[in-house]
Amino acid sequence: MSDSLERIIKAIKPLDEVAMEAARKRQDSLTKPQGSLGRLEELSIKTAGIKADPLPKLKHKAIIIMVADHGVVAESVSLYPQEVTRQMVLNFLEGGAGINVLASHVGARVVIVDMGVIGGFPPLPGLVCKMIDFGTKNMANGPAMSREQALDALEAGIKVVEAEMGKGLDIVGTGDMGIGNTTAASTICAAITGEPIKKVTGRGTGIGDKQLAHKIEVIKRALAVNHPSARDPVDVLAKVGGFEIGGLAGVILAAAAYRIPVVIDGFISGAAALIASGLSPRVKDYLIAAHVSAEPGHALLLNFLGLRPLLNLEMRLGEGTGAALGIFLAEAATRILTEMATFAEAGVSEAQPIPEDTIKKWGHQKSPIF
Amino acid sequence: MSDSLERIIKAIKPLDEVAMEAARKRQDSLTKPQGSLGRLEELSIKTAGIKADPLPKLKHKAIIIMVADHGVVAESVSLYPQEVTRQMVLNFLEGGAGINVLASHVGARVVIVDMGVIGGFPPLPGLVCKMIDFGTKNMANGPAMSREQALDALEAGIKVVEAEMGKGLDIVGTGDMGIGNTTAASTICAAITGEPIKKVTGRGTGIGDKQLAHKIEVIKRALAVNHPSARDPVDVLAKVGGFEIGGLAGVILAAAAYRIPVVIDGFISGAAALIASGLSPRVKDYLIAAHVSAEPGHALLLNFLGLRPLLNLEMRLGEGTGAALGIFLAEAATRILTEMATFAEAGVSEAQPIPEDTIKKWGHQKSPIF
Repeated sequence: MSDSLERIIKAIKPLDEVAMEAARKRQDSLTKPQGSLGRLEELSIKTAGIKADPLPKLKHKAIIIMVADHGVVAESVSLYPQEVTRQMVLNFLEGGAGINVLASHVGARVVIVDMGVIGGFPPLPGLVCKMIDFGTKNMANGPAMSREQALDALEAGIKVVEAEMGKGLDIVGTGDMGIGNTTAASTICAAITGEPIKKVTGRGTGIGDKQLAHKIEVIKRALAVNHPSARDPVDVLAKVGGFEIGGLAGVILAAAAYRIPVVIDGFISGAAALIASGLSPRVKDYLIAAHVSAEPGHALLLNFLGLRPLLNLEMRLGEGTGAALGIFLAEAATRILTEMATFAEAGVSEAQPIPEDTIKKWGHQKSPIF
Repeated sequence: MSDSLERIIKAIKPLDEVAMEAARKRQDSLTKPQGSLGRLEELSIKTAGIKADPLPKLKHKAIIIMVADHGVVAESVSLYPQEVTRQMVLNFLEGGAGINVLASHVGARVVIVDMGVIGGFPPLPGLVCKMIDFGTKNMANGPAMSREQALDALEAGIKVVEAEMGKGLDIVGTGDMGIGNTTAASTICAAITGEPIKKVTGRGTGIGDKQLAHKIEVIKRALAVNHPSARDPVDVLAKVGGFEIGGLAGVILAAAAYRIPVVIDGFISGAAALIASGLSPRVKDYLIAAHVSAEPGHALLLNFLGLRPLLNLEMRLGEGTGAALGIFLAEAATRILTEMATFAEAGVSEAQPIPEDTIKKWGHQKSPIF
């Protein structure tokens, strides 16, 4: 393990209970019935604990999209040709992709990181190069990458977060692009959670029944050939992962270490969270699960991590599109906490429980409950 | 029925199928796997049908909050004193309430309408006066209002929408405030849907078990005393409704007539939607159900209306707070539709189904599916 990965893992501390308690008290003093903003209240308290700030502000927002190619596409696991990975990077840079629209809608900047796209790119404004290799190897025949490359990918994610912190980073969303990467994510998910392959494998970009059955066979083969060890997340990442998944795991670890809330997107980001939380279980407390994807493995994976998604909009695009919506909700939650008036400030009367005498009188009435 | 109510009801037309078909085709040409943005895609297509525009824009957004008092609070159905209705109007005007924060977060203006708060208000900047009376009468003893007042309330909602259209109104959210109004909403819900009172009655601002049992008894009495006719929505509104609920029903009818999408908030707005859709069943097509509230009647009511909520964040504040989040999603959906690049524009390769020859080869493999 590299020095900086070790340093980052050591730096991940528990949530700040004092800030959380102060946030909880403030929520109960705001001009609304207690608890009436439901999960937004929870989310604001969690964010206070993450940032160790009873009145957290989420001004600077970024979605980090890690992109890489996958050797396993040689097995015909996707509906789209491999060149789409590369083409979509250009689409991100031009602002034409789904994540560009949604990130703009929530006021988040987009950071596009080449973790290993086949062919590479010339220097392009807006593209961060952390290329590990021109795509992974075909995991159906052997390890997707070396252990050293897996560690390099984690390291790259840490470096990207540290660089973004220089521009201001109050909350980060994770995003991914890589044709074939639901195959890698399903394999990671099966390896770490122990769930049956069939349960964690879905249609990705939209494959039909026969191709889905084939995809399941390919994953079975990848696990049989590689024997990834569930107890060693770096081993899982190396044998059946992807460069962008490793990069995102690094992003998650670094964000947790620096007390930055991480809004995880869909299935690929979830697989990265499995790797990261294998390296430091405390990471889970820093994660906000934006949504549950239409990929069937995602719900299982979130359950394994003890996370409850905020949204279910049947999305399955990736790119960080779900994370963008989650960032919006996290900011809404913290604005509620910090901007609403208290009962005292607004001169609004608080709840007045009914006197016992009145309740006793009701007791004489026929009631459908008692 | 007044002339303008009749005119509005007649003006409600079916959704525009041509615009919806064009929007559907465009969604399928955008740089993402088809259907991968799930319910956001549906929402963009519905919005196109509502606005009769294949590329709808939601620039001008407003949340209309109707406020009124309820005579039924004399029966001790709420945890908060009646004066809170009035105090919260002042809080809305000062910008300290939950809806102020969330409306600002989604870029919507807030329109506060006094439909009948006890004591009334002097002219205040930002407060629209459509006062019908100083609160309704206690429906546990007789009709909450006269039939004429019910029609006036509907009319007031229409007038508010027409006035707001002068400022630009591309989408409208509904909101409510009125201590005691979950009691009215539950009674309307029971009267119109025929569901058992116990199933549609909840804890409102947070009452305990005994007070809940009492609230159910009060609703039972209100229905027994008034016999509202499920076939006559104005009768239901008059006998067991509220001025703000009537106002919101008018808002919903007018928005549908003018082809403006209406994002309905929680249980109170849902009761208003029941009244409005009783007057014109086509109204349902113009409704976007933002969320399902923690009030148990809300899910039943949405099901009765054939609406599927976008969010479930366990919120139960009212004020339009859920609607604000729904407006955000509707705008996200239309921005996706109008701003994303197509495959052709971005030079991204489209899906390539696997050749039959390849699939035949897979057929020889053992597969867990076939």
